[in-house]
Amino acid sequence: MRYALGVEYDGGGFNGWQAQRDDPSVQVCLQDALANVADHAVTVICAGRTDTGVHAACQVVHFDTQSRRTPRQWILGINRRLPATVSVRWVQEVSEDFHARFCAIERQYRYTILNRWVHPAIRAGKVSWCRYPLDVEKMNKAVAALHGEHDFSAFRSAGCKARHAVREVTHAGVTRRDDEVIFDISANGFLYHMVRNIAGSLIEVGSGNRKPDWIGALLKGRDRMLAGITATAAGLYFIGPRYPDKYALPVYPFDPFPRGQDQS
Amino acid sequence: MRYALGVEYDGGGFNGWQAQRDDPSVQVCLQDALANVADHAVTVICAGRTDTGVHAACQVVHFDTQSRRTPRQWILGINRRLPATVSVRWVQEVSEDFHARFCAIERQYRYTILNRWVHPAIRAGKVSWCRYPLDVEKMNKAVAALHGEHDFSAFRSAGCKARHAVREVTHAGVTRRDDEVIFDISANGFLYHMVRNIAGSLIEVGSGNRKPDWIGALLKGRDRMLAGITATAAGLYFIGPRYPDKYALPVYPFDPFPRGQDQS
Repeated sequence: MRYALGVEYDGGGFNGWQAQRDDPSVQVCLQDALANVADHAVTVICAGRTDTGVHAACQVVHFDTQSRRTPRQWILGINRRLPATVSVRWVQEVSEDFHARFCAIERQYRYTILNRWVHPAIRAGKVSWCRYPLDVEKMNKAVAALHGEHDFSAFRSAGCKARHAVREVTHAGVTRRDDEVIFDISANGFLYHMVRNIAGSLIEVGSGNRKPDWIGALLKGRDRMLAGITATAAGLYFIGPRYPDKYALPVYPFDPFPRGQDQS
Repeated sequence: MRYALGVEYDGGGFNGWQAQRDDPSVQVCLQDALANVADHAVTVICAGRTDTGVHAACQVVHFDTQSRRTPRQWILGINRRLPATVSVRWVQEVSEDFHARFCAIERQYRYTILNRWVHPAIRAGKVSWCRYPLDVEKMNKAVAALHGEHDFSAFRSAGCKARHAVREVTHAGVTRRDDEVIFDISANGFLYHMVRNIAGSLIEVGSGNRKPDWIGALLKGRDRMLAGITATAAGLYFIGPRYPDKYALPVYPFDPFPRGQDQS
């Protein structure tokens, strides 16, 4: 059988998602826990690999197994064997044609900036930080230019392995929630460091160093060297992927108690 | 001169507030940073000592110094010398009769419970966790019994050094915010583990193991042995103390940019 699985993690203690020889990775933690429950070695494929320090609210992976367990048994068994900063949110059997990476039709990211005079303490490692007041209205005006299909070369970091730089942004918006400024963006896919590169330029707009139309101009110019710095990983959350309705996977933003399966 | 200072910290990496010989404490970190800026040894007095793992949104301390610095110089200087999980939010000169502990007329605590099927990951160490659905209405009914002046012996842990157990609760309420259940309580003062002991019993009510009137009955009985367990420190936040208006200190819940001083 093939299973899909939603997993939340704090990226702070990991050298990113992907399995590496010596460094701690979320993938290896999850595979070790899964192998223990499944009674055989397991390899997982994820919807979107995250970098060092990047968090995930609901990364989705799939894996194949011959071991029969209920969703409840999978979840309890895996979670008992995961570190405190990784948590499986749901497990669901899927058809064999499901692929966590290739079936995702949209991916949602959130970039969170603590916007106050002094550095984060309780939220250290969980937010980016800008000490100068950010103008959310201007930032919103700026991200409007991102909507739709564009070549995102201006926000693509060196080392990106994607074949081309064209992506379709389905949503981009900036909101303030108390002392946090939140940049939400959804697209069919993202280039290497794309969200953090946009966030870095967006902070320039919000703090008044650049005009809102700068983001659109950067996009058109396709030159990474002209854009702002890559914003820190701590503020970045992979909210999760979206799949065609036929797979009937849990839909996020999150419910406190995910639907669609027995978890009582 | 005497200064008051508001400080936020993540209690996770500290053995509580109070200075100890070998263990890391928030007090020692802060005093070391202060001494560095003031150019002499500094001892701080806090509004409320917090235990190992307990966080503070705005602990308030006072200290005496002959060194003249602007609030801006104090804040920048101290924050540069603090660990990432401690942050001074404001500094303000106060009259010599101000005392962080004895002048506080109210203290506010928050206890946060992640209420979902699986353990916290992104919020590990920042929330308590209850996997069974909590009934906020019942919990609210239960905490109504805490309002007013009572002997809180039922929720006082062994080792408490207070002279007597009578405290006046000025606010107690439970709310749900997405997947978090939040218990807010304000009083003129708190006994050792008082909030965590109430929270432990409150979880019993919320999960249906006890009726709402149990909390009131426990309170009347004054017997710690009959109440629930001490809930974990990770969910507890010292929101901050309140002082008489004449001291004109910043008022919390927090503004993103505290008023009343030049922080530009």
